[in-house]
Amino acid sequence: MGTQKIIVIGGVAAGASFAARLRRLDEHAQITLLERGPDVSFANCGLPYYVGGEITERSALAVQTPESLTALLALDVRTGCEAVSIDRAGRRVEVRYLADDRHEWLAYDRLMLAPGAKPLRPSLPGIDDTRVMTLRNLQDMDRIATAATPGRRAVVIGAGFIGVEMSEQLRHKGLSVHLVELQPQIFPQLDAPMTALLASELRAHDIEIILGDGVARFEPVVGELNCHLNSGRVLAADLVILSIGVMPDTALAREAGLALGPRGHIVVNNFMQTSDPAIYAAGDAVLTADRLSGEAVNLPMGGPANRQGRVAADHICLGGKAQPYPGSLGTAIVRGFSVAAGITGWSEKRLQAAGRTYESVTVNAEHHAGYYPGAQPITLKILWEPASGRLLGAQATGCEGIDKRLDVLATAIIAGMTIDDLCHLEFAYAPPFGAAKDVINLAGFAACDRRDGLVRHITELPQDPQVQIVDVRGKALAEAFPLPVAALNIPFPSLRDNLARLDRTRPVVTVCAMGKTSYFAARVLAQEGFDVKSFSGGVRGNLDPRSPGKVSG
Amino acid sequence: MGTQKIIVIGGVAAGASFAARLRRLDEHAQITLLERGPDVSFANCGLPYYVGGEITERSALAVQTPESLTALLALDVRTGCEAVSIDRAGRRVEVRYLADDRHEWLAYDRLMLAPGAKPLRPSLPGIDDTRVMTLRNLQDMDRIATAATPGRRAVVIGAGFIGVEMSEQLRHKGLSVHLVELQPQIFPQLDAPMTALLASELRAHDIEIILGDGVARFEPVVGELNCHLNSGRVLAADLVILSIGVMPDTALAREAGLALGPRGHIVVNNFMQTSDPAIYAAGDAVLTADRLSGEAVNLPMGGPANRQGRVAADHICLGGKAQPYPGSLGTAIVRGFSVAAGITGWSEKRLQAAGRTYESVTVNAEHHAGYYPGAQPITLKILWEPASGRLLGAQATGCEGIDKRLDVLATAIIAGMTIDDLCHLEFAYAPPFGAAKDVINLAGFAACDRRDGLVRHITELPQDPQVQIVDVRGKALAEAFPLPVAALNIPFPSLRDNLARLDRTRPVVTVCAMGKTSYFAARVLAQEGFDVKSFSGGVRGNLDPRSPGKVSG
Repeated sequence: MGTQKIIVIGGVAAGASFAARLRRLDEHAQITLLERGPDVSFANCGLPYYVGGEITERSALAVQTPESLTALLALDVRTGCEAVSIDRAGRRVEVRYLADDRHEWLAYDRLMLAPGAKPLRPSLPGIDDTRVMTLRNLQDMDRIATAATPGRRAVVIGAGFIGVEMSEQLRHKGLSVHLVELQPQIFPQLDAPMTALLASELRAHDIEIILGDGVARFEPVVGELNCHLNSGRVLAADLVILSIGVMPDTALAREAGLALGPRGHIVVNNFMQTSDPAIYAAGDAVLTADRLSGEAVNLPMGGPANRQGRVAADHICLGGKAQPYPGSLGTAIVRGFSVAAGITGWSEKRLQAAGRTYESVTVNAEHHAGYYPGAQPITLKILWEPASGRLLGAQATGCEGIDKRLDVLATAIIAGMTIDDLCHLEFAYAPPFGAAKDVINLAGFAACDRRDGLVRHITELPQDPQVQIVDVRGKALAEAFPLPVAALNIPFPSLRDNLARLDRTRPVVTVCAMGKTSYFAARVLAQEGFDVKSFSGGVRGNLDPRSPGKVSG
Repeated sequence: MGTQKIIVIGGVAAGASFAARLRRLDEHAQITLLERGPDVSFANCGLPYYVGGEITERSALAVQTPESLTALLALDVRTGCEAVSIDRAGRRVEVRYLADDRHEWLAYDRLMLAPGAKPLRPSLPGIDDTRVMTLRNLQDMDRIATAATPGRRAVVIGAGFIGVEMSEQLRHKGLSVHLVELQPQIFPQLDAPMTALLASELRAHDIEIILGDGVARFEPVVGELNCHLNSGRVLAADLVILSIGVMPDTALAREAGLALGPRGHIVVNNFMQTSDPAIYAAGDAVLTADRLSGEAVNLPMGGPANRQGRVAADHICLGGKAQPYPGSLGTAIVRGFSVAAGITGWSEKRLQAAGRTYESVTVNAEHHAGYYPGAQPITLKILWEPASGRLLGAQATGCEGIDKRLDVLATAIIAGMTIDDLCHLEFAYAPPFGAAKDVINLAGFAACDRRDGLVRHITELPQDPQVQIVDVRGKALAEAFPLPVAALNIPFPSLRDNLARLDRTRPVVTVCAMGKTSYFAARVLAQEGFDVKSFSGGVRGNLDPRSPGKVSG
């Protein structure tokens, strides 16, 4: 091919990855990278950690500078340069240089749109106050870092990734923090019980979480900003972080007449081509296929953005040899102090909303061999399709090894694995690293036992007084962490000798700390003829995520 | 069914798991568990960590006691009880009680053999000295712990898992340690370069590693034991740990006429049935199918043992509803101080020995985002089948996140994934947990680039003076960690301006720290018409596992 002219609009994750891959594939292409801001290829996922002081060098976040990118990739990098219109018929882009407002037309053979997404700023009264901040780039970060001095009062609106990370980092820096979320739980991507440990951890660090409430308006008063919530509550703030979500930055694509989704995302095929085959798009602004359902979804995450940029470059340079983008799964994790929580695939809420049939179990186990020092509990929930046994999603929370389990389960879901397959995954085991039966194996065992009719699970404690609730924990643990319903405490080792205490004509629910001993008890009772269900996930997974698994007695 | 009589011989991993699962499936079975030693269900993988003092409570290693196992599972647990013969026709086992030498015949409907494996003790002169110890059970552990006092001199013979773990723990406790290995590398399951970092770490902790040498004889002299090596070298020891491997403890199975493999392992089908359908076997003493090749292999590991015991119980109680044991992959990991190294699937050595065609790449990356504090390098090697792209094995080493990558890759191998699939695995990413492009994605990219002809790799630096070796690292790094061969240092950012310094008629090999920049350079040179190969894995993966990736300049 002759020298091809490539223009890239947006120089962060998707745009920079695209440009880098394209250069490797075509040493002689003319690649021009346009970026409205002053920075390219910066670490946007790292911004909260600079605000909080965990990352101390601002330069660490500038993964590449315009100069280094030029040197490494022989690009024509133009920062402070905004693309203002696309002449698709003429294959050219009109740019404006912010420094001098000069306009220029640049010709392309192929155009990559990587505009990203911008934080939502609803038109609420007072929202234009400079103390109401959002976090998208290094300049936003600098503003927040300057405002966030120890002792000040921060209100964080929205408890998704950014909201949780910013709350943690602002508190870490010594501010007081209120975290406000419209949903009745934090980290709404997860099912509510799987966020309980994270919420407990944030509260333990004196972050006040306000659920089921949103901000109605902001009111500047002397020396502070009052955040009026829908409930009428007023929070006095020195700074407000607005982290209620993002919208695609696609005005340019819309004006160019490219096909957009219902919420303004750019529609692309699986080689990242837009409705104009000479124009590609990638990253936070596009719709890609959900890996489970095939439906078009937007997933504004760094990993997919990077890989999408690469796919587009491959398609331009390798044509039919390029591998398509296989879609996105939605694997995500967030940390709050010592606790992590994350998801891969679909949540129960999302399956319910889509009307899909599913089953789920929740199990608890330690992240490595319990007898080796430092073992930390993990709570793992898996969801699967009953007919096929195929995994649909997984969520995990705990202090150690959460990312590992999510990564394995993301791989298993992508592979189309079933609950049977989970039973016999063979992991790297030595006492510092894992257990002979990993929590993922245990989840497979529990799911198969359920499927095979060996156990029936219940996920909420029944209120019906006809149901006999048998708490099979040790006496000390049952007394220290009592159930919120009336229950008979029969520690499991004495269960077989105490069957006479139970009424065989009434249903039984067995409960324990982790959901394992209650299963053992349910097996005993079922084989003795009782109508019995086990409380899946136990006290830890449902009622008190900080309850211990073992207390002697 | 009526009350079935089950006898289990051996009460540790496979036997205890079998008994527990069987009880859940059949509340009314008569289950008798026979154990020659005094302990059941102890944590054999934890023994080294008690010797070294990391595990301080001996009771933590007794995961279950005979009493607790009886209470939980309603078993008839008989410790100090040895099975001495099997009357297969009469379906009974002759046992001997060690306390009083009393013999008794016990009837069974189904028998489980879980005898495990015992450490090899070759008949070398002097080997019966009490200072030459092996580690199989709590009594062995107690003997070693008593002997291993700080300041004493230990010689560890054999640098597999146990040898590496015992060396680390003895050193941790303050002994001086020599580690002797017959192979030219430690941890012989791995390919040699992947063990270099671990060896470096052991040496940095003053463990002297002696490779390519073995012990010929032991000679007690006044106050110490001389270990005479094959090389003639003599090591004075206060204690010797013999960790050169294990052999199956299958004399009973042999005498009963059960089918055994060439090295004495019990042959079972995929429901763990021996050649006598009433007799099952599981754990370290059996042969199971290799998950990649289907061939019969022995894998004496805790995870497989536990899951095999479960499969056998399922087959006895559920019959046709039981899922077969799918075979073993050989996932393994070992830690030496701050460094971990591990493998899943087949090594290059094993593929070569089997005459199989394969390709491999080695990549280096940080375990989480490089800009987030604490990022640690990982070296990852993957092997695949060229025709299909299917993964055959993976090895990883580094300080953090090694277990995670092995677990993901074990799952990918089990799923039959290809190098293309690795490119688009979607992992849980936030700066404390990973990177937007994980090292596994990078390995997929590198493998596909190789497959697609974008890069040719070389794994050893050529000695041929005709080959131009171009070191594309920065000047400071190239000077601080010089290559062992003559090379031209052209830092990558200046490569395009220095092409005239290279002879286009001679082949070029590009070299960098991590194997990434050398690939970038190879792409530039290939497109400029050079005959070029990139040094896979770079200096870190091949020459100096402790070399840094970045030094400014």
